[in-house]
Amino acid sequence: MHIILASQSPRRRELLERAGYKFDIEPSDEEEIVKSSIPKEVVMELSRQKANYVFDKHMNNADPEKDLLVIGADTVVSIDKEILGKPKDEDDAFNMLKRLQAKSHKVYTGVSLVYNADEEKKCHTFYEETEVIFYPMTDDEIRSYIKTKEPMDKAGAYGIQGLCGIYIEKINGDYNNVVGLPIARVYQEIKKLKLDI
Amino acid sequence: MHIILASQSPRRRELLERAGYKFDIEPSDEEEIVKSSIPKEVVMELSRQKANYVFDKHMNNADPEKDLLVIGADTVVSIDKEILGKPKDEDDAFNMLKRLQAKSHKVYTGVSLVYNADEEKKCHTFYEETEVIFYPMTDDEIRSYIKTKEPMDKAGAYGIQGLCGIYIEKINGDYNNVVGLPIARVYQEIKKLKLDI
Repeated sequence: MHIILASQSPRRRELLERAGYKFDIEPSDEEEIVKSSIPKEVVMELSRQKANYVFDKHMNNADPEKDLLVIGADTVVSIDKEILGKPKDEDDAFNMLKRLQAKSHKVYTGVSLVYNADEEKKCHTFYEETEVIFYPMTDDEIRSYIKTKEPMDKAGAYGIQGLCGIYIEKINGDYNNVVGLPIARVYQEIKKLKLDI
Repeated sequence: MHIILASQSPRRRELLERAGYKFDIEPSDEEEIVKSSIPKEVVMELSRQKANYVFDKHMNNADPEKDLLVIGADTVVSIDKEILGKPKDEDDAFNMLKRLQAKSHKVYTGVSLVYNADEEKKCHTFYEETEVIFYPMTDDEIRSYIKTKEPMDKAGAYGIQGLCGIYIEKINGDYNNVVGLPIARVYQEIKKLKLDI
């Protein structure tokens, strides 16, 4: 089966590689649209749009693929019923990190597996939820962290696997889900679908 | 302050580097002895012995160091009140991994910071506890995992950050504690001690 990861996130690529899969990378360049504001629905819907877009591109041509699996994923941070995506600028990153202090927040990743089975297109979507608790950061620590630029391309303005690791007190759930792809759940779901990989 | 990590674990080194510390590595070559069988006491005591041994070696000579911090750490896995260290051989690894199925277990890392302050030797010891829950592994999956050799140098016969990642359903606590060093807690404790680093 030919696997495509519909994401340009280096963290997702690394997690999928570490799990032993061979795959190509082809991010969706479609503008995603979502109506819901419920985090788990948002990430599932966006992952579905990304995976479907790439899958359809490979099917709607003269030589459609027979054995294709496209993996799409989307991650957001949620606090006080509000969704935090990637920060717009350094001020936005500061405000996000400030909000993540002193209470727990949740990270949601939605994953869609779009594949063909018995000459039919199938889509299997799920999500994982992880609770994250920070140690208190001083304003100076937040500013130094932003100076490293690490927060700028990450939902919620932090990378748990990077320099922000020293500020994470504990999590409840899957760690890799916070990194951007719940690889254990992905492996388990692919196993259940009995795909020939 | 001159920092020494009293451990040869490449995972501990990587975590300490990622936190931005500059340090040397000097594992203790003393045989550690511990009487307790209570996991948190075992890891605290062993971390203390490792750090003390290396600290004393640097002090008991003609030119003792004035500003030295030695970090010692020890990690064990605990299940059903029993402690799992590193596996002796592949059969032992198989039995350990078999035991970790279908129920949660705990990982304990003890850390000791041995340093000099006001010309006195001080020792600050603490531990972190993380609960880990596996997805069920088939015997074939366990055997394939053992073939990779990854389990052989690790407490409890698995590496959460490595190939075993696809079998970890969730954790409750600090992830890096399971890797071998609760770097966030180490950073917070060093901050509290107000050491000049």
